Amino acid sequence: MCGLARLQAFAWLALLAAGVVAALPARESGGIRGFFPARAVKERELEKSFQQSPTPGRARLDVWALTSEPHVAGTPEDYRTAQFVLEQFRLAGLDAEIVEYEVLLSMPREVKVDLVAPVARPGPTPEGGWKPDGKLADARAIMAYNSYSPSGDVTAEVVYANYGVPEDYEDLRDMGIDVAGKIVLVRYGKCFRGVKTYVAERQGAAGVLIFSDPADDGYRQGDPYPKGPWRPATGVQRGSILYLTEYAGDPLTPGVAATKNAKRLAMKDAPTLPRIPTTPVSYDDATPILENLSGPVAPNSWQGALPFTYHVGPGTSKVHLKLDMDFRTRPIWNVMARIPGATHPDEWVILGNHRDSWVYGAVDPVSGTAPLLAVGRGFGQLLKQGWRPQRTIILGSWDAEEFGLIGSTEWVEDHADELSQNAVAYLNMDSGVAGSYFGASAVPSLSRLIREVADEVKDPATGRSVHTVWAAEGAKIRRGNGIPYAVLNTTLSAESSGARVGSLGSGSDYTPFLQHGGVPALDVSFGGPYGVYHSIYDSFDWMQKFGDPQFTYSVAAAQIFGLLALRLSEADLLPFDFADYADALQTHVEELEKELKQEPRVNFEAVHASLAKFTESAKTLGAELARASAHGALSAKQTEETNRALIDVERAFLIERGLPGRPWFRHAFYAPGVYTGYSAVIFPGVREAAGRKDWTAASRELDQVRDAIDRGTRVLNRAIASLIGPERRR
Amino acid sequence: MCGLARLQAFAWLALLAAGVVAALPARESGGIRGFFPARAVKERELEKSFQQSPTPGRARLDVWALTSEPHVAGTPEDYRTAQFVLEQFRLAGLDAEIVEYEVLLSMPREVKVDLVAPVARPGPTPEGGWKPDGKLADARAIMAYNSYSPSGDVTAEVVYANYGVPEDYEDLRDMGIDVAGKIVLVRYGKCFRGVKTYVAERQGAAGVLIFSDPADDGYRQGDPYPKGPWRPATGVQRGSILYLTEYAGDPLTPGVAATKNAKRLAMKDAPTLPRIPTTPVSYDDATPILENLSGPVAPNSWQGALPFTYHVGPGTSKVHLKLDMDFRTRPIWNVMARIPGATHPDEWVILGNHRDSWVYGAVDPVSGTAPLLAVGRGFGQLLKQGWRPQRTIILGSWDAEEFGLIGSTEWVEDHADELSQNAVAYLNMDSGVAGSYFGASAVPSLSRLIREVADEVKDPATGRSVHTVWAAEGAKIRRGNGIPYAVLNTTLSAESSGARVGSLGSGSDYTPFLQHGGVPALDVSFGGPYGVYHSIYDSFDWMQKFGDPQFTYSVAAAQIFGLLALRLSEADLLPFDFADYADALQTHVEELEKELKQEPRVNFEAVHASLAKFTESAKTLGAELARASAHGALSAKQTEETNRALIDVERAFLIERGLPGRPWFRHAFYAPGVYTGYSAVIFPGVREAAGRKDWTAASRELDQVRDAIDRGTRVLNRAIASLIGPERRR
Repeated sequence: MCGLARLQAFAWLALLAAGVVAALPARESGGIRGFFPARAVKERELEKSFQQSPTPGRARLDVWALTSEPHVAGTPEDYRTAQFVLEQFRLAGLDAEIVEYEVLLSMPREVKVDLVAPVARPGPTPEGGWKPDGKLADARAIMAYNSYSPSGDVTAEVVYANYGVPEDYEDLRDMGIDVAGKIVLVRYGKCFRGVKTYVAERQGAAGVLIFSDPADDGYRQGDPYPKGPWRPATGVQRGSILYLTEYAGDPLTPGVAATKNAKRLAMKDAPTLPRIPTTPVSYDDATPILENLSGPVAPNSWQGALPFTYHVGPGTSKVHLKLDMDFRTRPIWNVMARIPGATHPDEWVILGNHRDSWVYGAVDPVSGTAPLLAVGRGFGQLLKQGWRPQRTIILGSWDAEEFGLIGSTEWVEDHADELSQNAVAYLNMDSGVAGSYFGASAVPSLSRLIREVADEVKDPATGRSVHTVWAAEGAKIRRGNGIPYAVLNTTLSAESSGARVGSLGSGSDYTPFLQHGGVPALDVSFGGPYGVYHSIYDSFDWMQKFGDPQFTYSVAAAQIFGLLALRLSEADLLPFDFADYADALQTHVEELEKELKQEPRVNFEAVHASLAKFTESAKTLGAELARASAHGALSAKQTEETNRALIDVERAFLIERGLPGRPWFRHAFYAPGVYTGYSAVIFPGVREAAGRKDWTAASRELDQVRDAIDRGTRVLNRAIASLIGPERRR
Repeated sequence: MCGLARLQAFAWLALLAAGVVAALPARESGGIRGFFPARAVKERELEKSFQQSPTPGRARLDVWALTSEPHVAGTPEDYRTAQFVLEQFRLAGLDAEIVEYEVLLSMPREVKVDLVAPVARPGPTPEGGWKPDGKLADARAIMAYNSYSPSGDVTAEVVYANYGVPEDYEDLRDMGIDVAGKIVLVRYGKCFRGVKTYVAERQGAAGVLIFSDPADDGYRQGDPYPKGPWRPATGVQRGSILYLTEYAGDPLTPGVAATKNAKRLAMKDAPTLPRIPTTPVSYDDATPILENLSGPVAPNSWQGALPFTYHVGPGTSKVHLKLDMDFRTRPIWNVMARIPGATHPDEWVILGNHRDSWVYGAVDPVSGTAPLLAVGRGFGQLLKQGWRPQRTIILGSWDAEEFGLIGSTEWVEDHADELSQNAVAYLNMDSGVAGSYFGASAVPSLSRLIREVADEVKDPATGRSVHTVWAAEGAKIRRGNGIPYAVLNTTLSAESSGARVGSLGSGSDYTPFLQHGGVPALDVSFGGPYGVYHSIYDSFDWMQKFGDPQFTYSVAAAQIFGLLALRLSEADLLPFDFADYADALQTHVEELEKELKQEPRVNFEAVHASLAKFTESAKTLGAELARASAHGALSAKQTEETNRALIDVERAFLIERGLPGRPWFRHAFYAPGVYTGYSAVIFPGVREAAGRKDWTAASRELDQVRDAIDRGTRVLNRAIASLIGPERRR
């Protein structure tokens, strides 16, 4: 069945399935943080009702429909998925629309990676060569490429540079190896792939080949697909190499929405566009290149899992790399659904997931799209039962995330003022389900909410709460047999031990909300052994065999996603916890101080003093919120003012002029690391100045951190003042 | 040139070379610990003279001659090497003889390892198939086997059990895998190979295959031979699987010398003989077996470097293992040279190295035999210049070490009473040179002497002292790129950081001296990247390419070996340092206490009290020795009595009844671990009882430790009393 037919068939099946609602055992009611006692009872009923809505059968149908054909952003197939999502939202009874932007996307016309010496071997080998059903790989799949790589034609010797981070080039220098004019061969992992090109470009390399080493996501981790969930020999990781640590979104419209008539940069002036040709290869294609390198033996930590000793080169291996890329401004399509808030229409709770994929994208992103649709349907059902949310709920199906968080970023830039006023929180789900291990990253004020919601949802495999299993398994993942179960482009599970919530770096659509817009954000998912990321093997078949065979984790993901939104949309007092934020900042500051302890020119006294005040206010606020929540005796005005202040805290952490050298990133505490790309760097301004040993700048940036904390304290105090009311004020 | 001819040619070349003595810059003289001032000057001259004797050219000739043909213990080729060594000693002017014992050795008649399912593949593949010169491997090389494996014929499914230590079987049990009746496939490393069979036998396995994983000593460490020093695809590690943790030496004559008419056990009653067939295989042969295992994916730490995901089995792979072994009592030949002491003929300083090898044995043991010969020649030259050692020096070229430390053990058992009275120390060198990284293990009272001697000898590559380089490089080895440069069967370099001296476990000929006889012992060598251990590739060609291309480290090894002996043979007061011993015991006890801290039934108070007294006495003794050494005003009787006491200290650490269950091992502090075989277990009686959670026994064994310490203290006090003389006694 072709993809279009599958999508059409599905709409019909979905209508049939709509009647099936499984009965779940009743949960005891009780107090809920942020809810006045009377309303907590109603919230429990609402949540119970919502939790009964998503079903495995529906999830399976959604994944089946959305993985029916490759749907790269900006293509007709992608538009079909937008129409499908629009239709699902509308069938659910939601008010929904497609929002189009016009953005620069690059598509591959030709990719050649020919080994020309010491032996001739043309490449790349087409991915797969076979499908699960034994036939040839899908001709509709886009050839493996790195989007935004420039076109190029270069023949050069090769140097192996490990993961291609700056330390690797320092090691190469120690070995006497210069990469200027060479093609560097690096392996995926450790940092965002764009960083690899960014660093290689600054080293004077002529081109970059990025391969998937079986040590990292292939047979050294477990059996390759189709026997197991890991990357097979010809599997290639596609992906963008946009220099996202400068700014996210359309490369030509930084900071503004890429509408039809937006003012655009010339390509040559866009700082996020890489300048040297870069392309991904499978380890099958990397093997003859790597095996024929001479030069020093690579250090032990550089050795991967291919069956020979890795040398760094150069010498012997010579590669002809030819890329012909079609750069063009193309339309992309976000699908936006909106449920207006009955009481506070100008307080927005936003849920989002991207829809575009590199091939079928069963895990990335369809396993997050299915829960988004389930949440939409669940809310539609509640609406039919007469419910109206207190606050406005917005569901976003973002496009072109894979190219550089483009759909979400353009929308955020399009609604910058409203978001600044109205956004309560942004809840993200990218690859929602790749296994059974729950993981989360968030701003610290939302960690507690995630744990509370994880307490309400059942882990399908064990019947215990997701929180219980998360706390037990998180530790096990780290201890166990060392397999990094986390999806490779997030820092979720791999870094969490027990029920720990990680810091948000980048790699998904929360970035424009949090780091550009100062909107409190979180990201949740179920991870697992998953080596087929951004390859043709991330398919429905993979998902059925390994990721979520019963589609029950898709249901759990939807339950968590929806409950997070319901708590935030329905709470009388928004369930942020700033004492957790204070604790996190305390830890962050201590770590930074320890790192810089040799450096007397950076003085931490003022920050400590500010942080002590913030902590004090956060604790007072927490106690007052608990008291108010328990008594439920606040005036509407008090509640309104308090919530306004609670919403404003995160915005207070923005630095208006942005981070030095990258003004689009404005959060004082969190940014994607310039040399990591994915994982968060904390107090980025200070750390980056310290990295350059510019102590004057480091001190200045630390002042910015202190100011941000002080601004936060003032907002917390505003919340306290609203809460305690005029009669209890000193 | 055949081996015999090479040996004969060599004798002639050696005579020519004898005239060549390079002039070295004069060293400043100064105090030497243990020498009265006047005699220190003479010792400096003596050492200077000795250091000029060994030359790279001579070392090269020795290695060339001794690697001319495979010389397995008990074979005619082995006898030829004994004659060669005898001749070299005699040419040097030493009194030497061949000492024969008759011991049980097993030789292979047939070894078959046929994969019978899922595909048929007969094995094993002959090692090499090629030589450095491109021809077929040497037909004289003994087929790869594990000596003392019984004959057997078994066809069974295979289970992969990682390194085959007890924890691995616990993990298998957790996975629901039982190895009873199965052939276990284990990899070399982590413990003595005999332990692998010992544990598998107790698990009910039907047979054992031991393979060399390229992760451990092949391409994952560096380029395989002949491109690099690591093990190639068909390389096999031969070696004994005698259960040496029961007792060392001839399996049929425990505790007594294997003379012609010695009373012998029946084979069926010998507890050190394994009962299940075991044979080593290359990774080339292990690959199809391992690749076809089904069952659970092996834990991450069990994954080696072969290019597929390891499963534990059983299932699919079925192997037919057939071994036909020729067990027979055979003659072996130690070569013993003796230089009688002029002043203290009944105080013996013994140097030893084994001579038998598995194939050519360029590193193991020839790189230690060349220094032993160089020491013999150096001493011979000193004798010709009129020198007579103060104490008796004995040089031993042991046979059948590879089978189970047999030559040295039989000699120790043969001379038990004399050694108990006379032995000052035993200095061991096994694989003397595999690279440039100095490493040492010793009883703690000899650590300081090793450092002092390493100060006197120049590191050939840098011209700095071996001690300086050792201190710097030891740390680098651990830090650097993680390559375990140590020879795999010793705990030397890999465990030392900086100039640290390790504890003596087992794996070479110091075991009968120290752990059976209570003779203070040390082991020194230069290690390096060395993956061809016990294979046909451990050859002269390997040594010239990788191990010691200039044969300068062979010279340094001889200088260190000889200087250690000269310090011990010539000292006025023996240069033991018991404060170091006290420190080591202190650390050992603290570690043990920490391990058992959950266990209130084991009380450490008495041990601490005893150790405090020992420490106090050791410090006093150290001060008195320093004072006496500086003043040089002791009577001959005082000196004699003091040295007698110094000799007796180590013997005081023996437990007469031996360790529980293995009475041959008598040292209270050090034994080879039952489940490690090579590395030392400290306070073995206590730790083994604790391992069984038998706290009564653990307490009893701790009492034995305390008694040993107390006995040591009394001997230390005797030394103090002798030193301070009647006039200064209280």
